[in-house]
Amino acid sequence: MSTKRKAVLVVMDGLGDRPTPELGGMTPLQAANTPVMDILAKEGQNGLMNVIGPGITPGSDAAHLALFGYDPYTNYPGRGPLEVLGSGLETKPGDIAFRSNFASVDKDMIVTDRRAGRVFTPEEQAALQSVIDGIEIDGVQVRFLATVEHRGALVLRGEGLYANISDVDPHETGKKILECKPLSPESKRTAAIVNKLMIEANRRMRDLPLNKERARHGIPPANAILLRGPGRHDEITTLKEKYGIKSVVIAGGALYIGAAKYVGMEHALVEGQTGTIDTNFHNIALKTIECIESDYDYIFVHIKATDNASHDGNVKEKILAIERTDKMLGEILESTRDKIVLVVTGDHTTPVTIGEHACDPVPIVLWSSQMRSDCVERYSEFDAAQGALHTIRGMDVMPLLLGYAGHIEKLGA
Amino acid sequence: MSTKRKAVLVVMDGLGDRPTPELGGMTPLQAANTPVMDILAKEGQNGLMNVIGPGITPGSDAAHLALFGYDPYTNYPGRGPLEVLGSGLETKPGDIAFRSNFASVDKDMIVTDRRAGRVFTPEEQAALQSVIDGIEIDGVQVRFLATVEHRGALVLRGEGLYANISDVDPHETGKKILECKPLSPESKRTAAIVNKLMIEANRRMRDLPLNKERARHGIPPANAILLRGPGRHDEITTLKEKYGIKSVVIAGGALYIGAAKYVGMEHALVEGQTGTIDTNFHNIALKTIECIESDYDYIFVHIKATDNASHDGNVKEKILAIERTDKMLGEILESTRDKIVLVVTGDHTTPVTIGEHACDPVPIVLWSSQMRSDCVERYSEFDAAQGALHTIRGMDVMPLLLGYAGHIEKLGA
Repeated sequence: MSTKRKAVLVVMDGLGDRPTPELGGMTPLQAANTPVMDILAKEGQNGLMNVIGPGITPGSDAAHLALFGYDPYTNYPGRGPLEVLGSGLETKPGDIAFRSNFASVDKDMIVTDRRAGRVFTPEEQAALQSVIDGIEIDGVQVRFLATVEHRGALVLRGEGLYANISDVDPHETGKKILECKPLSPESKRTAAIVNKLMIEANRRMRDLPLNKERARHGIPPANAILLRGPGRHDEITTLKEKYGIKSVVIAGGALYIGAAKYVGMEHALVEGQTGTIDTNFHNIALKTIECIESDYDYIFVHIKATDNASHDGNVKEKILAIERTDKMLGEILESTRDKIVLVVTGDHTTPVTIGEHACDPVPIVLWSSQMRSDCVERYSEFDAAQGALHTIRGMDVMPLLLGYAGHIEKLGA
Repeated sequence: MSTKRKAVLVVMDGLGDRPTPELGGMTPLQAANTPVMDILAKEGQNGLMNVIGPGITPGSDAAHLALFGYDPYTNYPGRGPLEVLGSGLETKPGDIAFRSNFASVDKDMIVTDRRAGRVFTPEEQAALQSVIDGIEIDGVQVRFLATVEHRGALVLRGEGLYANISDVDPHETGKKILECKPLSPESKRTAAIVNKLMIEANRRMRDLPLNKERARHGIPPANAILLRGPGRHDEITTLKEKYGIKSVVIAGGALYIGAAKYVGMEHALVEGQTGTIDTNFHNIALKTIECIESDYDYIFVHIKATDNASHDGNVKEKILAIERTDKMLGEILESTRDKIVLVVTGDHTTPVTIGEHACDPVPIVLWSSQMRSDCVERYSEFDAAQGALHTIRGMDVMPLLLGYAGHIEKLGA
């Protein structure tokens, strides 16, 4: 493998689909006008992919870990830590991460509003963040980031913390914040710290001036935090450690940014990138090209709009999301054609006809300007079945990409 | 996966074949008239399956464990325990199961007839069973069931029993019953119990009135048991524990019923179901439909006739068995079409030209009324090679069936 190329993975979330009556039995991908993907299919190698395994319906987060080359059965830390990491609150191995709500409680810690009225000014968020972030309990440091509305991310950092603990959120109003209990002996200390944190956060929040101000406007006070979805940032071998590569994620959704950062990617911010059909595809293309031209070896680009449309059962929007991604790929290829190895695929199937993830494999195309092609002429679930990649698994994608891009050393002499 | 379906696995034993001169180079499956299977192939996804692994010739019992999702290299207890379980003698984890013969010995325990003349009335079987069943030796309980002719099933139940012991059957007349020896240190106690059992069974059997009666008719006495094929019912995670499903087997042969019960299936008895070409296909269809309509989630249907014909080198009968199965599938589909996910396959290849199991993969079709199809138009070993499933393993069948039927939880969020 003489010259190295940049490895580019483009994932359209929930891309895979089933025959759709509204489209005369075609899938949205078949119905979409995709001249660029069709050229990739014609010039590259195609296949079907069971992202986790045959018959296994992938969640998006576990699916992405597989696409990054990590076994989701042993490396999946739960959605919480990935969302937290994606929200901008950094974690490191050993940390326990939670998603968090600002909530309202009475003086007996009985929950009166699980979202504290939902309305928060940036100033209120900053004030609340400043009293929670930095709390220390029994040598464990609390990190906190207010994110959107009543939502936030919280991290416990210290020795000997484990995430196998029960929930504190009673999940309904009129009930007291629950005692956090260890669900395994090793988690005893973590549960005790969470219980102390509930009280300490309430102590620091309840008398803040902002709560008097909220009361004057009839808005419930933010005087407690509710934590959910605890997970541990486990020891994980980063992509840098595994392959010696510098990698970057270009994504709008916190979950995908978080999954990518979890395996060691940097995050490249794109102006106007969102998780919807209105994301700025042109800016994503420009940023992708910029990353390819810079010193990144691996660039992961995530498009969420396909999955949103699928969950909404919106056939037209799914087709539109695919067609816009196709145009974006054209922009990227125009200036980087001979510098990259490209994979275009999905992380799971979400048939618009059922609006939920399903176990059906997804199409995948592996392309570079200097590789063998196969007999496939169009990019679709049906055509891909005839391709030279046959059926692969999600965990095969990273070695394939990096292998063809010259980033994996020969084994043996 | 919003609506759940019933998962149905139909196995034609020894289905796979090779080009057959008698059929102008076609396989029996190619030569058979199979309109229903052809529709399944056209509407579903096809592939080839290495039931255990590439190049590995499967035994029927190990093959079925793989088809049920169990690794036969770690979960196969030997043929004995599966036959015993299939014969109707229940076993549980920790039990040691043997197949057994009634035999004739002289007063020095020298074998004079390994099958004690083969002829047994139901009354004789009952009398012999009643003296062996219930023996207790050093805290170990003996369970015994007389089955067909001189044959029976025997189970040792107690603490610390292991199956790694030598044979007691000298396999020829004129030789003394062999001393059972432990083949590993942990089996020492089991071997000692078997040796005591040989003597105790002889003591209880030799003076039975039925042996005086047999002597009067010149029939050899049934005054000993010969045990063979010991195996341990190991701890195994049942299908219920693995997937939360209720499962059932519809089969004529003890080995298949036993393998299915070993992983936790119930057995649905069908009037007229045998292991031959004369099995009642119509009744099998009716019972399958009944199970689909009841609360079973997974229904396994086994057709043995294809394998018998293959072992006999009987091309016409193999074709007939396939065609009768095809008709049976039509009956099942007629009333359950939109309620099931269906797999039709074989457990191994038995070419009629060689009459023995071979390592060639078998064709498989995965069908439901709402899935992507592929380019295959006919159900055969040759056509299946073009299908979207490509090459899978036996252990992939259960996740595929249950995944498409909505019985496996999503991994991740």
